[in-house]
Amino acid sequence: MRKVAILGIGQTKIDEHWELSLREIGGSAAFAAMQDAGLDKVDALFVGNMLSPMVNGQNQLGTFLSDWIGLWGQEAVKVEAACASGAAAFRSALMAVAAGEIESALVVGVEKMTDKAGREVTSALATAADADYEVEQGISFVGLNALIMRRYMHEFGWKHADFAPFSINSHENAMHNPFARLHERISMEKFEKSSMVATPINLLDASPIGDGAAAAVIVPAERVVSVKGKPRVVVAGSASATDTIAVHSRRDPLFLAAAYESSKRAYQMAGVTKDEVDVFELHDAFSIMAALSLEACGFAERGQGVRLGLEGEISPKGRVPVCTRGGLKARGHPVGATGMYQIVEVAQQLRGECGETQVDGAQIGMAQNIGGSGATIVTHILKAE
Amino acid sequence: MRKVAILGIGQTKIDEHWELSLREIGGSAAFAAMQDAGLDKVDALFVGNMLSPMVNGQNQLGTFLSDWIGLWGQEAVKVEAACASGAAAFRSALMAVAAGEIESALVVGVEKMTDKAGREVTSALATAADADYEVEQGISFVGLNALIMRRYMHEFGWKHADFAPFSINSHENAMHNPFARLHERISMEKFEKSSMVATPINLLDASPIGDGAAAAVIVPAERVVSVKGKPRVVVAGSASATDTIAVHSRRDPLFLAAAYESSKRAYQMAGVTKDEVDVFELHDAFSIMAALSLEACGFAERGQGVRLGLEGEISPKGRVPVCTRGGLKARGHPVGATGMYQIVEVAQQLRGECGETQVDGAQIGMAQNIGGSGATIVTHILKAE
Repeated sequence: MRKVAILGIGQTKIDEHWELSLREIGGSAAFAAMQDAGLDKVDALFVGNMLSPMVNGQNQLGTFLSDWIGLWGQEAVKVEAACASGAAAFRSALMAVAAGEIESALVVGVEKMTDKAGREVTSALATAADADYEVEQGISFVGLNALIMRRYMHEFGWKHADFAPFSINSHENAMHNPFARLHERISMEKFEKSSMVATPINLLDASPIGDGAAAAVIVPAERVVSVKGKPRVVVAGSASATDTIAVHSRRDPLFLAAAYESSKRAYQMAGVTKDEVDVFELHDAFSIMAALSLEACGFAERGQGVRLGLEGEISPKGRVPVCTRGGLKARGHPVGATGMYQIVEVAQQLRGECGETQVDGAQIGMAQNIGGSGATIVTHILKAE
Repeated sequence: MRKVAILGIGQTKIDEHWELSLREIGGSAAFAAMQDAGLDKVDALFVGNMLSPMVNGQNQLGTFLSDWIGLWGQEAVKVEAACASGAAAFRSALMAVAAGEIESALVVGVEKMTDKAGREVTSALATAADADYEVEQGISFVGLNALIMRRYMHEFGWKHADFAPFSINSHENAMHNPFARLHERISMEKFEKSSMVATPINLLDASPIGDGAAAAVIVPAERVVSVKGKPRVVVAGSASATDTIAVHSRRDPLFLAAAYESSKRAYQMAGVTKDEVDVFELHDAFSIMAALSLEACGFAERGQGVRLGLEGEISPKGRVPVCTRGGLKARGHPVGATGMYQIVEVAQQLRGECGETQVDGAQIGMAQNIGGSGATIVTHILKAE
């Protein structure tokens, strides 16, 4: 496999973009990444998106977007793995460039969620769960996560307030990210008093959805010496793994087996250990997912993920910096686009572009994108060279 | 890039499978392909599907199906390119094996369309067109094809009956394919008297949708010497190209630019010319598409595609055998699965398994899968070795 590097990145602010259409949002991030890469054409476009058939009445999103941005004739395709669609699209593009089939690829994660009312979007999001054996029984996606969180608290003896550091950290970091959906510091008191969504998950445990797109241009690493004098960012590790789609089918619903498996393979491919990871953009769709992800990837013992937050280790100055640009919780979670935001943010860290939330000397960064309640998990490790 | 071969194939009969669910249909084809390959595990699953979010309320179809067939822990993903989803998934799997990232992949094209009423399915199919600039204006997918066909007849002087050979050939060939949706010979008289759908497209110009799945297992070619004493089938060429998503944006709506482009690249990769292609499974969703596909791929001059049918050249004994297993017209068109049926059928031809519709001495076969009204076109060339 050829070594692949990221030549350009781009993103839009996550928000309720009532004035913008799906193609305009995707196009903005695409053009920003192409401009950053200094290219006006690429061989292929890979789009990560989950909801466009249901929310925007649009399928064939690869070609839809390649047409809009003027890549007529080139290859284009959409990849879908629920909320892991962004990273899954990146991995597909990576394979095509690594195989030597194409010399450049643009990957765009995009979602335009405000084309439908909230109730309809909630139904659309539930398609990430098992339609027959979960959704048909009446449970929502947040309900599934609430069951996992409640069991975790019972099993390991944590109380709800113990999860607060994850949300507080993400909100604090988002203050310094102009592309973040929420710019609002939160306190422990606010966290505890927030409205309940599905016990024990309250509004400040849950990430906000939104409209947004993030994109990257990748090429064979030999084509990149340095980008604007900054270190070159190479894709050192990439892996995707699955678990059962329904939570009730798992032998242990408190262990993200697919995160364990995909991070293990990614560490191996990159030739690094978890101790060498300087920054970790994890998938905090709900605060419980942050804890489980840290545990499955080896940063904490089983049941002890929350401790990293309580001990102040997850901030940009801590031992395991997570969600340095706001994470899903505060940067926002435009579902099929999220995985590409994470990859773009890790690239920003390795290029040293993160200002107030820059992790000093970040050389190795990891992005982990989760589809469903841990059903599909895609992990990427990037290195500054 | 490593050379890749097809180790196993499988398919289900296309029908209205009221008694079977999406996972059961996909699982049947998957198990058949695994059994044919003699494997009980693969490294990754790639699923081609278009409609499951809208028709079955299910997303994340890669993991949904990998769970059902027992591939826990392995990689899984869904690829979508409207009606070209099947071939697009095959191409994604090909890249991953060719890159050396995985040693085996199962590709399943699957669609379960009878979970919703016909009117809802028609709306879901329209998501292949441009939601803003085509569908929102009130045109259906068959309506778009009717406009193209009418213009073609006007431009090149053909009458409706001239398209009959495409449908007659497909129906005749399907008589000998147990997996085909329709087993019914048709005559010119029946073709001409069939109910009108959208002038000039009548019922016998249009392919029937249906529930079905087709699958293949691919591995590095070096792992395959011969399959059950039959020739080994290698993937010699693969290419995907796009056009504008809306038909009205094309400089020439009667030329499938993406078919021209993807077939050109596939010929080049395979090192063959169109004259060396022994069998061509083309995408006859509507009879007009068969003519346009033949022209764009070099088998006929502009406006002369129908002549091949009229001169009897498209039958299994003709110069350019097409739709030898019934094509979309009579084998059936379970949209996101169709591309995998085409690949499985070309593999059957190269293995010499087609009985009455076997093309004598078939060594090189081509499969071409079209998404939208020519917006995404994926071409594969297989070789018997």
